[in-house]
Amino acid sequence: MKPGLFITLEGGDGSGKSTQAQLLGEWLQAQGRTVVRTREPGGTEVGVAIREIVLHHRGEVSPRAEALLYAADRAQHIGTLVRPALARGEIVIQDRYLDSSVAYQGAGRVLGGTEVRDLSLWAVEGLLPHLTLLLDLDETAARGRLDAADKVFDRLEAEKGEFHARVRAAFLDLAAAEPDRFLVLDASLPVDELAALIRARVAALL
Amino acid sequence: MKPGLFITLEGGDGSGKSTQAQLLGEWLQAQGRTVVRTREPGGTEVGVAIREIVLHHRGEVSPRAEALLYAADRAQHIGTLVRPALARGEIVIQDRYLDSSVAYQGAGRVLGGTEVRDLSLWAVEGLLPHLTLLLDLDETAARGRLDAADKVFDRLEAEKGEFHARVRAAFLDLAAAEPDRFLVLDASLPVDELAALIRARVAALL
Repeated sequence: MKPGLFITLEGGDGSGKSTQAQLLGEWLQAQGRTVVRTREPGGTEVGVAIREIVLHHRGEVSPRAEALLYAADRAQHIGTLVRPALARGEIVIQDRYLDSSVAYQGAGRVLGGTEVRDLSLWAVEGLLPHLTLLLDLDETAARGRLDAADKVFDRLEAEKGEFHARVRAAFLDLAAAEPDRFLVLDASLPVDELAALIRARVAALL
Repeated sequence: MKPGLFITLEGGDGSGKSTQAQLLGEWLQAQGRTVVRTREPGGTEVGVAIREIVLHHRGEVSPRAEALLYAADRAQHIGTLVRPALARGEIVIQDRYLDSSVAYQGAGRVLGGTEVRDLSLWAVEGLLPHLTLLLDLDETAARGRLDAADKVFDRLEAEKGEFHARVRAAFLDLAAAEPDRFLVLDASLPVDELAALIRARVAALL
């Protein structure tokens, strides 16, 4: 049996993660591999119930309670869905994982990135992906192009832009700290070009 | 304003925690103090929803997901109910807290007591009780007296007895490690005698 492979995709919203996950999954299936595409809550009953709590009580849930709920969702998803698939030799392609938690929490500045990472790693008993594809997008530039059309630049939009810039910087820091695990990609490249770069890296791991 | 006081009660089921919590609460109220009696999930909406998940999905929830869910419940309960009450100068009397998590998880041997304690302390930003009343009961002796009546000693009962003995030993270890925080009481003493011992210790903290 071939060994399992755990691949995650990270990056801001709209950076093309779903498209690349689908193309990579189709290519791997064409190679005869069994592919599991997932995201948290990942369809576990417990995960869905946890999301219900976080989403329906937003504003009343304390920051640590929320972080612990997301970590519980992750523990259940990895423990009951991802690890068994990897043990069967399958390839798991997951949209967002602990790097997103670290980047977004760190950028939000409520909890420290390091403690969020420690909590996540405890939840999943240390499971790190074999490969993390970071679809890096200069959101300020992207936003600038959009905004030029209607010339609306209010303070809220500027704050959003700063938040996204912090998230992007956090992702790039994470990638720099673990260069062997990360493949950083310029998400502004054409879809086919990106897919080819990703296939080349994944092929080396098969 | 008088400073708040956080008192927890620990010990096995049937050791008399609720009775002593009630007597202590009534005595404190007679002294003119505002008393909050609570337990986890403690009536927070989020806590109740979390308990629903743990109880209705028992058997399918991974051990770490379960520990994280209980920690989230605790974070919410302490952050939104206990800390505000203490900040108002009230006395919080809570049935079971992190010592129970450590003693029961450690005795169950799925997760280590130390990591459960670390997780709980992170959840509550380090909040420890000013006083923990440990109602210590030799459950083997208690069980022996009960069992003698119907002379039923099957293996399951023996295993239960061993589990309770481990929980009891874990509580006593925790008390020995923090003698200033714990008051260890012989739960087989008469109710009034126990209540007097507890009042004497609490009076010194008022």
